[in-house]
Amino acid sequence: MRPDGRDSGRKPTLAVVGATGAVGGVVLELLSTRHDVWGRIRLVASERSAGRRLVVRGEETEVEALSEEAFRGVDVAVFDVPDEVSARWVPVAAAAGAVVVDNSAAFRRDGDVPLVVPEVNAAAARSRRRGIVAGPGCTTLAMIVALGPLHQEFGLTELVVSSYQAASEAGRAGAETLRDQLVKVGGTDLGSLPGDVRRTVGDYGPFPAPLALNVVPWAGAWEEGGWSSEETGIREESRRILGLPGLRVTATCVRVPVVTAHSVSVHARFENEVTVERAHEILSSAPGVVLYDDPARGEFPTPADVVGTDPAWVGRVRRCPDDPNALGLFACCDNLRKGAALNAVQIAEAVAAELAAEA
Amino acid sequence: MRPDGRDSGRKPTLAVVGATGAVGGVVLELLSTRHDVWGRIRLVASERSAGRRLVVRGEETEVEALSEEAFRGVDVAVFDVPDEVSARWVPVAAAAGAVVVDNSAAFRRDGDVPLVVPEVNAAAARSRRRGIVAGPGCTTLAMIVALGPLHQEFGLTELVVSSYQAASEAGRAGAETLRDQLVKVGGTDLGSLPGDVRRTVGDYGPFPAPLALNVVPWAGAWEEGGWSSEETGIREESRRILGLPGLRVTATCVRVPVVTAHSVSVHARFENEVTVERAHEILSSAPGVVLYDDPARGEFPTPADVVGTDPAWVGRVRRCPDDPNALGLFACCDNLRKGAALNAVQIAEAVAAELAAEA
Repeated sequence: MRPDGRDSGRKPTLAVVGATGAVGGVVLELLSTRHDVWGRIRLVASERSAGRRLVVRGEETEVEALSEEAFRGVDVAVFDVPDEVSARWVPVAAAAGAVVVDNSAAFRRDGDVPLVVPEVNAAAARSRRRGIVAGPGCTTLAMIVALGPLHQEFGLTELVVSSYQAASEAGRAGAETLRDQLVKVGGTDLGSLPGDVRRTVGDYGPFPAPLALNVVPWAGAWEEGGWSSEETGIREESRRILGLPGLRVTATCVRVPVVTAHSVSVHARFENEVTVERAHEILSSAPGVVLYDDPARGEFPTPADVVGTDPAWVGRVRRCPDDPNALGLFACCDNLRKGAALNAVQIAEAVAAELAAEA
Repeated sequence: MRPDGRDSGRKPTLAVVGATGAVGGVVLELLSTRHDVWGRIRLVASERSAGRRLVVRGEETEVEALSEEAFRGVDVAVFDVPDEVSARWVPVAAAAGAVVVDNSAAFRRDGDVPLVVPEVNAAAARSRRRGIVAGPGCTTLAMIVALGPLHQEFGLTELVVSSYQAASEAGRAGAETLRDQLVKVGGTDLGSLPGDVRRTVGDYGPFPAPLALNVVPWAGAWEEGGWSSEETGIREESRRILGLPGLRVTATCVRVPVVTAHSVSVHARFENEVTVERAHEILSSAPGVVLYDDPARGEFPTPADVVGTDPAWVGRVRRCPDDPNALGLFACCDNLRKGAALNAVQIAEAVAAELAAEA
């Protein structure tokens, strides 16, 4: 037994908080392919979902209600719940002795909480003064595993980002809203008159405008200067993960009628001159990245190709004609997997390995 | 009678080439709201469509086959046909004495052909050494009427553009392909596995990948350095229209599952410091622009709101937090109207006024 009362000989206990959500479902899938890491896996969700039975690693497991009790004996807790639920319950789990990996935005700007993407800044996860490690937003994740190694080589100075974000970022309600709207507009002769789509789609669900046959240049909450919280999030998260507090970042976040997989168009400027050839070499060997870049042969990433896969896919790598220090690229990533569930599971596994080494 | 045999007392004769296409249909709609400009209106299309009868200004008019004969006595010809058809037939129409307004890409890079957006560089249309005036691509048009007056005030130095382009840019076939694909994927539980969408949508039509539930980072032909022709087009067209041959421009063109109306996310850097307040003032009074920018109240342009309307709608105007000389903005514009038909009709009307003044 260790001083904290946890058994050092056994495999660590994991709690999955938000187990019944869209990301939670993917966490359970991922855990089912990794049999040797965890001892007990506890599934936790809101009161409303308590008592449901979900399958993880082939075993039916009952969902427990979120409570202090749910964290007793838990070594690591992965949270994927709304910001306000994380804000309330993550500190409770940490106080109970669990290391918490939180996917919400609640702690991403907290200087005492490391913001971690294992391929880029794994070591940061060890300095967790509050016992909490945060994962960045899924739009940052779509590009950061590619930008990390490019920064190492060329020295990043500026990012201009425009996103193409999928509906499932807003959970099951987001995906269902888009599907319902598509059924309503499908096959009709819409899209030639203003208001056609608005009148037909009905409920906007979690989005501020119709999403079927539309794109919506808004994601998140309103912030000073007309920015959305997702846009300021990309700026702050990129700076923290890359360790570049002075990085110039500007982002425009746009929702598109795609169910799952975020895309980003990135203009990246560096201290040093870039070449596409060297960028290709770096991206080919970068962990967590698939380079898919031969547009003359129809090869570039699209959401339909990358959904359900783990890596960030990168294509359309070009050197800007008017700036030898700038690259354009287009990246896609499954927002439920690397964009959320996978990144959290990777961090949790690194923490488990660290606990095992300490034991 | 003038020396060229055209009657100076009468109203000019217009030919609409490509009258049966998606843009041609909008040209006829626009002409029907402008009864006092044109004398005879001749409708011209491919051999295959000859003999069809279309309504313009309330009158049924028979479509003529494209031939030298079709331009006899024509003062102004508006072309909206594929590049290769323009390349062959525009010079024929010009040789027959018509001033040609061409919407294809065939002459946009020709130094003897002015590239015109009336709100920005109307005077350029008068210097047409070859008797041809070109309109820019619909993505350039979505932003340039807003950028022109901002440049006058602040001095534009750089543009980084990411587009969200509608299916109808690829004509009726583009719009129909998207509708067919949406019917096939509509209501199904797709979008969680790679290949799901590819297997289900069937025909890709004029696009290089599925468009329903997807975004496709490619539009146009392959060019040196991995750029698409639409991307290099935005660079060259912006430079020509704004009269800034050294403007730094980089664009990423992405097709989205929207039937009609292009959107662009623009990062614009200027010589002088910008303020959102002054940018708002300029855009509020800019011809051809509607400022729609109060995201806290849900006001930002989306394709569903602007389709079927004439102006370019602009919102999400923000000063970049790390660069007081840079603005972000998001613009939407009906790619069939201001993006093609309306811009051409405006140029044609300016030419008609010029011819009348000369007569």
